[in-house]
Formats: sequence, structure tokens, C-alpha cells
Amino acid sequence: MQITSEQIEQLETRYRANLINSLGGFKSVVLIGTNSAEGNTNLAIFNSLFHLGANPALCGFIVRPDVSPRHTMQNILDTKYFTVNHINESIYENAHQTSARYAADVSEFDEVKLTRQYAEGFSVPFVQESILKFGCEFQQKIDIEINGTSMIIAKIVWIDCPDDALMTDGFIDLEIAGTMAGSGLDSYYKAEEVGRLTYAKPDKWPSKIL
Amino acid sequence: MQITSEQIEQLETRYRANLINSLGGFKSVVLIGTNSAEGNTNLAIFNSLFHLGANPALCGFIVRPDVSPRHTMQNILDTKYFTVNHINESIYENAHQTSARYAADVSEFDEVKLTRQYAEGFSVPFVQESILKFGCEFQQKIDIEINGTSMIIAKIVWIDCPDDALMTDGFIDLEIAGTMAGSGLDSYYKAEEVGRLTYAKPDKWPSKIL
Repeated sequence: MQITSEQIEQLETRYRANLINSLGGFKSVVLIGTNSAEGNTNLAIFNSLFHLGANPALCGFIVRPDVSPRHTMQNILDTKYFTVNHINESIYENAHQTSARYAADVSEFDEVKLTRQYAEGFSVPFVQESILKFGCEFQQKIDIEINGTSMIIAKIVWIDCPDDALMTDGFIDLEIAGTMAGSGLDSYYKAEEVGRLTYAKPDKWPSKIL
Repeated sequence: MQITSEQIEQLETRYRANLINSLGGFKSVVLIGTNSAEGNTNLAIFNSLFHLGANPALCGFIVRPDVSPRHTMQNILDTKYFTVNHINESIYENAHQTSARYAADVSEFDEVKLTRQYAEGFSVPFVQESILKFGCEFQQKIDIEINGTSMIIAKIVWIDCPDDALMTDGFIDLEIAGTMAGSGLDSYYKAEEVGRLTYAKPDKWPSKIL
């Protein structure tokens, strides 16, 4: 089926949201933990996390003003630090449930039954049930005027990775870590490796790294 | 294993690149097709595509100046349109091979053996072997000064989706479309749905949409 620009604009709102959210392909889906200025803990699911650079170690994600976890951005602006917690099969329903519109003074940790975990020297809670997680320090907020979203840029300052998932060259085997992928607004997947490929050079076809 | 900020900074460059690129979780991995101002076709693999909004239908991706497919950004700035082509299991090695540093006047379509496909009214080639694909119109480039990367923002203006993958509510079943997920710099995965969950509300636990 082919869909033109004019047809996209005329689609029913929810249909279009499902369609356009699916188009980008599989995506990262993580729980972001924050503290509010008042000291309340907050936990929200995001599916727009992306890699920005390895040196310095930076990541980014998009905050949409029309979507429920709006407390996250304000908390990051107020208190500067946040945690990123990968989702595995035993907690993906809990993770999804954080997208319900809870009041700002209610902690999603309690409401969705996930456990706060604190690392030494880091005041923001991680999710204990998450297997792979990292801590971030806020760097910059870039407003995207075209649709009123914002990009949060942060430095990765703390990593907790299971030993058996960390390969000798620094690659993390996300299958071993149990990390799930997301699609659209509401779908969760487990992944199976098809191949890890050698560095591409013009005169040589890639082969699998075994 | 726990890794602190100081340890991250001291890691060997390639090890750190693998580690930090893995941390974000599974990600979209797509082929972006462009035309140069001189009319040459270009094809490059990107793993930073993200959803920006459904109305208007917008997506974004990050271009890193230190990584090979630098021709893509210049082509988009020069000619304004590009195609995004999902990767499936039969072409993921070809897709990976586009990251080799080919000269600007060589087309990756030829070098990696993928077929140009043209849609009516759209001058930039799609990848024929790709099952799910869409065309984009450039909107804005935002420079990210902290590490010299740029974000390209584009409007989705044309969609080609297989009929059997498009659900009645607009959701695209990426498993049916054969779309692969990526991880790190060089790993490719197929995905299996664990669950599509109902819209989250504070007083109700999510259930699977069957």
C-alpha cells in the first residue's frame, strides 16, 4: 500500500500516530528515573533514546509535551541527573504502565511495583529489576520549534552492566542482558542475533564476527 | 560490572565506542538514499533514526562528522529529499557494506548490489529489496555543538508498506515486514513480539492486545 503526503495528513489521529510511530523501525525502550526538586522519585518509559557520541559518552532523547511523562524533563532541568534502565521480559508490563498519567506527587516506582536501587554517589534511583542500566548528567536542552518537542542531551557517567553480557571488545550482548526492543507506541519484542559483522571496507564483503 | 565516569574516559577508543554504542539498547537500522547535486545516487546505513512526531509526520536522525556516510547530509542539504529503507535478513550484509568509505562519485547501490527503485513524483531512489520504506522532505538541520554532530529533521511525505503488515489501526507489524533491529556498531537482529499492550491508565494494569 502506498500512502501520499496528502493522505497522511487526512488520516484519523490515532491511526496516524500508530502508523508514523511504527515507521521508524525497532527502537530502544527504556525507563528513565528522576528526582523532583521536592525529592519525589519519578519513573517514565521513553522510546526515543539515541546514541550521540562515544567520546565524550553522550546520549539524547526526545520529550514530547503532549505525552504523559512530562515530569521527567522538569525533574532533569531541576536536579540535573537521571537514570536509564533497560527493560526485560519480566518487567515490560510494569514499564508500560509508567505511561499512565499519574499525578506528580505519586511515584511510578510504587504504582507499577518496581524497586528503587541506589548506587554509591548517585542520588537518583535506578530500577533494581533492570539488568543493564546507566546514570546520566544533563548537558543541554534543545527546543525543536517545528513541533514543540525538546531534545535532552546528557553525558553517561555511570554504567552497571552484567559481567557475562560484556564482551572483551566492549560490545554488550543485549540478548544476554535480556534487553527488549520496542515498536510503535505499545509493542515489545525480544531479539535474536542474526549476525555481528566485520568493519566494512570498500574492497571486502563483510563476514560474521564469531 | 560497574564503570565510573573516570573509567569511561580512560577506556581505549574502540572499546569505548563499542560499549557506549551498545548502551542505548536496540535501535532502528535503515538505509538512507539520496541524490547529490550532480545527480549521483548515494546509499548509507544509519542507526540513529527516531520518531519526532505524528502530526505533522516527522522523523530525525543524527549525522556524525567522523563517520563515513558524510555524503548523505550534504546531499540532503543540496537536494532536499531522501528515502528511508528498512533492512531485512536478505540484505543486511549489503546494508552493512554501505558503511565502507566509498568515494563520492561511486554509488553504493552498485557497490553493494542493491537495486534502485523510483516512485512516481519522487526523484530519489528507494531500495527495491527493502520491504517497508518511506520518502522524506528535509525540514531543518540542528547543529549539536557539544560534540559536532548534527540532527536532520524531515517530514514523511510518502510511505510504501506491505498490505499484510498494516493493521486496521495503523500499526505496522514489523515482524511481517521482516524489519531488523540493530545494536552497537555492527550487530543485526530479528525480533519476535512478546506483547502489544493496551493504553495505560492509572487504575488498570495493561493487558495484551490480541
